[in-house]
Order: sequence, then C-alpha cells, then structure tokens
Amino acid sequence: MRNLTLLTDLYELTMGQGYFNEGRHEERAVFDVFFRPNRMITYSVAAGMEQAADYLENLHFDGEDIAYLRSLGIFSEDYLSYLSALRFTGDVRAVREGEIVFPYEPIFTVSAPMVEAQLVETALLTFINHQTLIASKAAKICAAAGGGVMEFGLRRAQGADAGVYGARAAMIGGCVGTSNVYAGKLFHVPVSGTMAHSWVMNFPSELEAFRAYARSFPDGCMLLVDTYDTLRSGVPNAIRVFEELRRAGHEPVGIRLDSGDLAYLSKKARAMLDEAGFERAIICASGDLDETLIRSLKEQGACIDIWGVGTKLITSADMPALGGVYKLAAVYEDGKEIPKIKVSDTTEKITNPGVKEVWRIYDKETGKAIADYITRAGERLDPSRPLTIFHPVDTWKRMTIENFTVRDLREDLFRGGKRVSPARPLSEICAYRAQEMSHFWEEYLRQDMPHIYKVDLSDALYRLKQELVERYRR
Amino acid sequence: MRNLTLLTDLYELTMGQGYFNEGRHEERAVFDVFFRPNRMITYSVAAGMEQAADYLENLHFDGEDIAYLRSLGIFSEDYLSYLSALRFTGDVRAVREGEIVFPYEPIFTVSAPMVEAQLVETALLTFINHQTLIASKAAKICAAAGGGVMEFGLRRAQGADAGVYGARAAMIGGCVGTSNVYAGKLFHVPVSGTMAHSWVMNFPSELEAFRAYARSFPDGCMLLVDTYDTLRSGVPNAIRVFEELRRAGHEPVGIRLDSGDLAYLSKKARAMLDEAGFERAIICASGDLDETLIRSLKEQGACIDIWGVGTKLITSADMPALGGVYKLAAVYEDGKEIPKIKVSDTTEKITNPGVKEVWRIYDKETGKAIADYITRAGERLDPSRPLTIFHPVDTWKRMTIENFTVRDLREDLFRGGKRVSPARPLSEICAYRAQEMSHFWEEYLRQDMPHIYKVDLSDALYRLKQELVERYRR
Repeated sequence: MRNLTLLTDLYELTMGQGYFNEGRHEERAVFDVFFRPNRMITYSVAAGMEQAADYLENLHFDGEDIAYLRSLGIFSEDYLSYLSALRFTGDVRAVREGEIVFPYEPIFTVSAPMVEAQLVETALLTFINHQTLIASKAAKICAAAGGGVMEFGLRRAQGADAGVYGARAAMIGGCVGTSNVYAGKLFHVPVSGTMAHSWVMNFPSELEAFRAYARSFPDGCMLLVDTYDTLRSGVPNAIRVFEELRRAGHEPVGIRLDSGDLAYLSKKARAMLDEAGFERAIICASGDLDETLIRSLKEQGACIDIWGVGTKLITSADMPALGGVYKLAAVYEDGKEIPKIKVSDTTEKITNPGVKEVWRIYDKETGKAIADYITRAGERLDPSRPLTIFHPVDTWKRMTIENFTVRDLREDLFRGGKRVSPARPLSEICAYRAQEMSHFWEEYLRQDMPHIYKVDLSDALYRLKQELVERYRR
Repeated sequence: MRNLTLLTDLYELTMGQGYFNEGRHEERAVFDVFFRPNRMITYSVAAGMEQAADYLENLHFDGEDIAYLRSLGIFSEDYLSYLSALRFTGDVRAVREGEIVFPYEPIFTVSAPMVEAQLVETALLTFINHQTLIASKAAKICAAAGGGVMEFGLRRAQGADAGVYGARAAMIGGCVGTSNVYAGKLFHVPVSGTMAHSWVMNFPSELEAFRAYARSFPDGCMLLVDTYDTLRSGVPNAIRVFEELRRAGHEPVGIRLDSGDLAYLSKKARAMLDEAGFERAIICASGDLDETLIRSLKEQGACIDIWGVGTKLITSADMPALGGVYKLAAVYEDGKEIPKIKVSDTTEKITNPGVKEVWRIYDKETGKAIADYITRAGERLDPSRPLTIFHPVDTWKRMTIENFTVRDLREDLFRGGKRVSPARPLSEICAYRAQEMSHFWEEYLRQDMPHIYKVDLSDALYRLKQELVERYRR
C-alpha cells in the first residue's frame, strides 16, 4: 500500500510548523468539507469517504518522508520529531457514500488537534472532490439512459487512480459495470469487454475474425460490427456467425456499435437482428456518449440496450472538478467552542460557523424528502411540533412543516482516531444510493431547471452567523 | 510499488485468450500511439513516457491477479498459466518527454508479440494521454504568464495520481514549482506554500496572525492578505510586519492575493508595497486562473510576479482528455511486415499504415523547424537534395525544401523487452522542452489562429495508404 501521508500542500506543513512554534499544535480545531452551488450541480452523490477513511487510518510519516522534509531546510528538528510520531487522533462525522447531498452541507467534518486537522485537508479534498464528482456525473448519465450504463473510460482517465477510483465512483452513481480490470479486482465490480477493431483487422476478413471469436467465447459472443461497414458487412457477418453458434447450441450475446450515426445504425441493426430471429441479442453502443447525447438518441428511438460511456464520464468532461472546500468552523479554547467564520463580499461565500449537524426532513405520509436542515451541534428537532424553516439568504421565503420525520444525515466515522463505521461493500453502497434517490421527487433531481432543494439553517445557526458577520464588519 | 498489470480493459485479455486459442499469441504486431487534431490543440508537449516505461518494465501478473482472472470464469487454465509467465519482451520507439509533438505523429510505437502488445494498450494510453494533456495545458498557461507559474491544484485533481503525475507534467510544461509535497519528494521538484485563510482566522487578529508567521519564517515570509479586507487591512498589516522583519535584519518575500479583482488589487498593493520601500516584495496571485484570465490580467497591467494555478491546470478544465489512440499499424507474417489500416468515412480518421519513422526537418540557416515528415521504416532522407513535401489530404499543397537538416524524432526506449534509454531527471526534461520550443517560430505555437505546423507523409507512405484504402473499398 502506498503511504500517501505526503499527499498534501506544503502550506499545511508550514502552518503546522507555525502552530508548533506557537505551542498551539494540540489546540482542537473543527473543519467542514462542503461545496458551493454551481449551475452544473442539481444534486450530488457523495463518494470518496472510504478512501478518505483509509488515508486517515494509515496516516504516518515514514523515515523517508521525514528525511525529505528535513532536506527542504524549513522545518525544525523538534517539529520533525513531532511529525514522525503523528497519527490521526481526531473525530470525523461524515455522510455515507451513496448519500444524496447538496451545496453548503458539511459532508465530512474533522475535529482534531490543529496540526492533524490542517495536514489532512488536501488529501481529503482530493478523494472526496474526485469521487463525488464522478459518482454525480454517473448518476446524471444513468438517469438519462434509464439503466444499462457501463464505464469504459480508463484510457482517457487522468491517471491510474482516476481510472480505478473513477470506476468505483461510477458504480456508486449507478453504472452496472466497468471495463477496468484493476477496479474489478479491487472492488468486486462486474467487468466486461470483448473485442477491439484491432481484432477484426487482424484476420483476413471480418467474418473470419467473428468466427474466431465465437470459437473462443461461444457463450459470451458480443461482436464489434463497425470496423468496415456496419450494415453491409458487420451486422450480416454477425448474424451469420450467430446462426452458426445457434446451430451448435449456443445463444449469442449481441453486437457493439462504436461509430457512425448510432440512432440510425441501431434501429437498422435491431431490425436485421429481429428479422434473423435474434430478438434477444443486445445492442451495445459506445463513442463519445454523455447524458445529452444519450437523451437525444433515446428521443430518436435508438435501439440501444447497453451504453458504454468513456471519456465524458471518467473525466466529468463538462465540469471536471467539484470545487469542494475545507473550511475552519470552530476552535476550542479550554474545552469551549469558539465558532469561526470566513466572511466574503459575496453572501453565498460566507461560511456557516460553528460545530454543526445536518438533518434530512421527510414527509411522514409520502416518505419523500422535504428539506435539509443545518443546526448547531446539540440542537434537537422535535417532530411532534411544527417546524418553520426559511431560506438562509432570502429569509422571507418561509415554510412550516408538520407531520414529518427527521434523519441525522451523518454518522460517526472516527472517534478518537479509531474508525467506528465499517467499510461497506460496494454493492451495499450502490443499493443505498438507489434507495435514497427514491426518497426525492423527480422534480428535484432532473437536470433541466430543477426545483431547488432547500438546505436551510436553524434559527440558532442563522443568529450565530449574523452575529459573527456583524462582529467582523466592525 | 503498486503492480498495475491489471490496469487494463477486459477486452485486451479476452482478445488475448482468443489469439492464444488460435495459436497466434506470439505473432508480432506493431501499434502506434497518436492523437488526432482538435480545435483546442495547437501543439502538445509529450509526457508520460517515463511512467509508461516503468509500467512495461514491471509488467507481470502476480498470484492474486491470476486468481482474480480465474474467478471471472472466462479464461482457460493454459492461457492463465501463459499469462502468469508473461513479461514485456517487445521493442518501443518513442519521443522523449518534453518533445513538441503534433497530431497524427506516432509518439510511442510498440512492436511485440500480439498478447503483450494488446494487453498494454490501456495503461500506456492512460499515462501518455494524461501527462501529455497536462504538460500541454501547462505550456499554454506558462506562455500566457511569461513564466512564474506554480502548480497549486492537488485538492481539485482527479485522484492522487492525477495530482502527483499532473504536478510532474506541469513542470515539464514549464511550471516553476508545485504545492504538492508528494510530487516534490518523488520527482525532486521545488515545492512552495505558506499559509491558508484558516491560519489568519485562527488568531485574534490578522496582524497577530502575520506576526506569528513571521516569527516562524522570518526569511520565508509570504503573507496571505485577503482574508478580511485586502487593501484596508491585509496589505497595511503585511507592510507593518515587513517593517518589523526588516528592522530585525530579515527581508520579507511578499504577499499572496487569492480573491477579488486581481488586476485592481495587485496594482494597488504594488503601489503600497513600493511606497513603503518593499519594491522587491513579490505579489503572488491565485484563484481560478487559466491562460485566458492571465492574459487578460496582464493586459490590464496587473502587478503579479507569481501565478498560482490550480483547478484549470490540474484538470485541463477546457479539454479534460487528450483522446490519444493506440492503433494497429502492422503485423508480421514469417518475418515480413504486413501493413494494417483502419478505414473510416472521415478521411482524417483513416490511420497511417505500416511501420513508420518520424523526422523533424529544420532550416539549416535559422535552425527553426519547417515540418515533420512521416516515412515508412527504412526510408532515408538525404539532406543534400531538395525534398518536396505535400499535404496528406490536400495534396496540391506542396513545398520544396532545400538546405535543411533532419532529426529522428524518436529514440529506442525498449529493445527485446530491455529498457535502453535511461530515465532522465525532471530538470533535464524541462530544459529539453524549453530548448525544443525555441526551434519553433512563435506563429506555430500561439493559441489564437496559429499557423498549422505541417506533418506530411513521404511518397512511399502516401502510396501505401492509398493502396490499402483502395483494397478495402473493393
């Protein structure tokens, strides 16, 4: 296993030296991971918490790391010695992977001695930003396709981790499998894949290439039909080989289209396959697909059963970074919470101060989510009494909720440096994501002009925020 | 070290099983990595060859890998046994990292037994696509800035590798350093970073925060001045601390701006620093920068010495994938080359067949590059005689070159599975990139409406291509 402890920005370590020199390195600080609204984000699917937890559990500088830091000539020996003994001793509260989350919600909160809390910022953001981004993009694509999306993007991924953890995130977002064998092994994910154009080009004819493949995989025969001429050569040759297979007692799987007009070709190919008695042979399509193109193909009546999505998914091409941040929410002095705020000229950029909790409020009758509600830690919600919530900026937008249930959106992930929630199998995470999505009206989840799901602040949190803003204005 | 042998698409392995069953797994095949034109690409800076070479050198399935493949239930025992002994035994010719490259040029050519050559496709593309993409984006950004660009993107990178190898690629493209400590250790790259807003928020006042930092780093004092109010609080407090430092015999480094109107703020801050006698204090700016914004800031006369570029660089946000491909160029039968071609309805998508070489032609007088020239392997260019080159599609575009020199653009990287070119230190690669760029007229390298640099085919290669296209049309 790689030791990723040095996967951090240098300033985390220089600030650490500063706190150490000031004798403040053991002061407790609380940082929240959250992201801000973006026109590309309707909702997000949380992911990356598992890699983040793994990183925290294994946090330690080894001898080489310390030697490297020493070589920079900017750290003191006593600080380096402190670092060489450092482990993560803090608490973490976080949403589960697969949770549906929204802007401003603290999805991962670290409470730890200053140097630890600061050190882990960068890597936590890297893992959570990346995997949440890809899981969310996958969810959009899968919603457009209505299922049957395979992740095919490894060769266009931004490095090995982007391919491997991206495949994992794609599964969390709803994909049914990946072409990535390494991810398959690591996460027990279904893998699939049959042939490339090079296979077809490597035989004297397309027909011979198809026959050779059918010989090796009589029960997994999926043929790539667009190497030369899809409708005049590829599909007729595939049908011929399918007939030969069937005569030998095997049922073919289907064909794959990787270029050309996928709407036209898939409809024609479907008709040819049906005509030849292969109504159950599936059609897989690939080639620069994303949610927009998939939606358009479906509108045109394309006959596509499996969507192989590569580049646009594995890079989240139209928004290749989530932009999640890690902001100081509080410090403790003599065991007392001192809430902290980052002010900004832009109202939306002012942080929510203090130690907080996040609640999801459901309509008791329909079971559907009504709003998320951020409170100060220790506040209790009483579902037996009406709750009035209001927009955190346009405060005249108010709503009173009755007959509701609430759910704590986060769980304890670490307590005193010990991991207290188990790693979950990917299949469980995927099922959880599907279940949680079913609690949202589709108006909140659609990509075009969605209803904006409410994420409001409690009275107490809102008042605290106003107080701190006022204090900084003076 | 991670064993990345399984970092491949499943179809590479199913095709391998097919070739194995056909008794063709030892047949030799030649594949080229190249990329196609894209409106976003003027030129590219090759990178990722080192990670690719490392991968090939260490290629082997370990016991766990074989057990996993067996568990899929689609591979035969004799094939699995063959795989468990497989090592890379092929030849590679590739451009050096830092080379300036253009569409259609085979930048990495693998000649190896079929199963090996096919297996390595995906990982080679992942490494080369990713690092070439980021090195090229960095080159664009550095060209706009005219130097002084730091890579700050780790927290927005698509996973750990994207951050680490992305930082490396950014250096190859011209960045002067990174915030990424892991990359610093791995590649001996200059790292930098001082403080975040959380540092400033963690002290009773901005002035106390600055003083505390100056106490710890009197000779590396770079202060972040935008936490509260840049011009009314941040810069005046910084100047006050700089004066205190100077009285104690230390010279401050400078200030960093991370938000707001960077043109306005940097000019005002510059004037305030100069006025206070800190003409040598530098101004570093960060915050959603890319080449367009940097160019605009420079046009406005922004006083920025160091540009901290994050998200847009580390993700290549406006084009997050290069789209390089790996295409079959030839196979050998009884030691004889059989050129292969992939035809397409789109002329630009038809591949260049056969085993090839790439040459760069320079004007002997100016030393500037005139064109690149792709030939069949074994062709010799005679610089003592005029050479007529022509556009590979619009063949009426012709040019006769005299008084030139030629350079083989590629080197042998592997021979018979042995690496024969050394790993180069990053500093050497960076210097090479700068040197090679100086051989291009700037008209070829500019981003807006550049002259299109010629990449032409030799007569022999052009004729071969036409012949094969004709053969497939029949």
